[in-house]
Amino acid sequence: MAERKTYDVVGIGNAIVDIIARCDEAFLSKHDLHKGFMRLIPAEEAERLYAAMGPAVERSGGSAANTIAGLASFGGKCAFIGKVAADQFGGIFHHDIRSLGVDYTTAPSTDGTPTARCLILVTPDGERTMNTYLGTSVDFAPPDLDPALIEAAKIVYLEGYLFDRLEAKAAFTEAARLARKAGAKVALTLSDAFCVDRHRADFRALIREGADIVFANEKEITTLYEVNSFEEAANAALADCELAILTRSEEGSLIVAAGKSVAIGADPVSQLVDATGAGDLYAAGFLYGLTQGAPLETCGRLGSLASAEIIGHIGARPEVSLRQLAKDRGLLAP
Amino acid sequence: MAERKTYDVVGIGNAIVDIIARCDEAFLSKHDLHKGFMRLIPAEEAERLYAAMGPAVERSGGSAANTIAGLASFGGKCAFIGKVAADQFGGIFHHDIRSLGVDYTTAPSTDGTPTARCLILVTPDGERTMNTYLGTSVDFAPPDLDPALIEAAKIVYLEGYLFDRLEAKAAFTEAARLARKAGAKVALTLSDAFCVDRHRADFRALIREGADIVFANEKEITTLYEVNSFEEAANAALADCELAILTRSEEGSLIVAAGKSVAIGADPVSQLVDATGAGDLYAAGFLYGLTQGAPLETCGRLGSLASAEIIGHIGARPEVSLRQLAKDRGLLAP
Repeated sequence: MAERKTYDVVGIGNAIVDIIARCDEAFLSKHDLHKGFMRLIPAEEAERLYAAMGPAVERSGGSAANTIAGLASFGGKCAFIGKVAADQFGGIFHHDIRSLGVDYTTAPSTDGTPTARCLILVTPDGERTMNTYLGTSVDFAPPDLDPALIEAAKIVYLEGYLFDRLEAKAAFTEAARLARKAGAKVALTLSDAFCVDRHRADFRALIREGADIVFANEKEITTLYEVNSFEEAANAALADCELAILTRSEEGSLIVAAGKSVAIGADPVSQLVDATGAGDLYAAGFLYGLTQGAPLETCGRLGSLASAEIIGHIGARPEVSLRQLAKDRGLLAP
Repeated sequence: MAERKTYDVVGIGNAIVDIIARCDEAFLSKHDLHKGFMRLIPAEEAERLYAAMGPAVERSGGSAANTIAGLASFGGKCAFIGKVAADQFGGIFHHDIRSLGVDYTTAPSTDGTPTARCLILVTPDGERTMNTYLGTSVDFAPPDLDPALIEAAKIVYLEGYLFDRLEAKAAFTEAARLARKAGAKVALTLSDAFCVDRHRADFRALIREGADIVFANEKEITTLYEVNSFEEAANAALADCELAILTRSEEGSLIVAAGKSVAIGADPVSQLVDATGAGDLYAAGFLYGLTQGAPLETCGRLGSLASAEIIGHIGARPEVSLRQLAKDRGLLAP
């Protein structure tokens, strides 16, 4: 890690407010929704689906933003870059991330396009099915990047979902360039298997040429490399970057680096209430460990710990201090 | 109860979105907040306090609205009258109450005053301290009443908080008049001891002249009658109306009617997470029983059941079907 950096991690991603409601399996079938996946929906579809949903709870979300919130809860010094509108949902997002001590200064849009929202349906098995109306979050473009923030980071963390718009993708590529020039590591999360499928060539190019660290789940990494087995995918990833962190839900995770691989068991969860954010929080724990110079096994265990906390309740932001939780488990010094 | 009524209960109250965050005792001291009470705050104070709060979760609230949501969860047929703005928080409120099958048709205001919000701070002991910015909810006035709704109700349920504005108080008085004329019972909740103190004379007049049923906790009823003991207060209430339901937190509740009183124990709660809405949901259970012709003891036990559900999680709207819960406990026919 580079010395004298102000930030442990600077995250760049969609700034989204989650609207979370429970539903049964029949609701998913009726609305032709594929359980466990994220899909993008236009404004009209968002209105239609929202009207059909049950009572909901709103809280800040967004994949990279969840990771940054998790890092802050561990005690990491972070910043976030992403776009909201000057509306009530934008106010929620702005408040929540800043209240965690995260630096967040991206100017809100004022053209009338609302803040992004994600309609999340949680089935009784705890799985979440996400329907994202991207609103103004995808108006994100290269001028929204703050080079000073990126240059002050140990790690710049990029969310694959941003690949869905050309301008945002350009901002992403520019952020990776600035980061590498300033001696920062570039970490990328693949976000979603459908997203990977839409942008396979771009993702593979970025991993080969611009990213040092890749986070993916089993479905995403096998989709990326179009292989059938987890092992083949892990080998392919390692040929492209220096560190790949591959998660497998209740089977834990596999950390693959040059010359070694470390398997981490999933933490026990008393009740799977809502899987939203499990991957985001795994990344938070892992990156916190990495920025503190912890061994890879400790990084993975910090990830599992954060992931287990988040799936025990509704919503993708931590409800307790992850720093305290990690101390209680002996993963951080008391 | 009158025959051939479309609605079991029509509720009238402030239409509010709750913004809920955890805090420690030191935060309350620092901001000079009195634990367990509700206070009204102007817009600037709401902004200042919100900026100081930690990350929050947003969900629909409002005292009478919570009661109506609870009644709907029991299977009651209900309507709600209360005012939101045509903004994102207004959209949340509108969606949530209608998604429960509650009729809600009050026209939103469009003058720029935002939807009301309540900043709720939950301390580790589960107590909630509420700071309400009333926004457009108090623009509620007699023309917002829909006489057809009121005339179609078995019970019209009024929230004491609305007494804080003259126009709203006038709407309240008019609603009580319409209700009695149509043969509906009028129920009133005192809402808050400070609110009672501000409007003692008006509350006593309404109970003597316009209300049949009164809900209050120990502090509210002793404040209303300016007496020292719970027993004195109960007797005073019974002299003024036909049915008083007095709640005492973990000591349960006392139902006082002409010639009889029934004591109900509080339901056991595995964990007191957030007391917000405990009184509102007690009223929901009680009124559901009453509209179904259940004996007073069953009404009280339905109230305790709903109250116990709500304090086991964050937020003042039920997270499970109260109807199913009541069936499982043998309080409703399977």
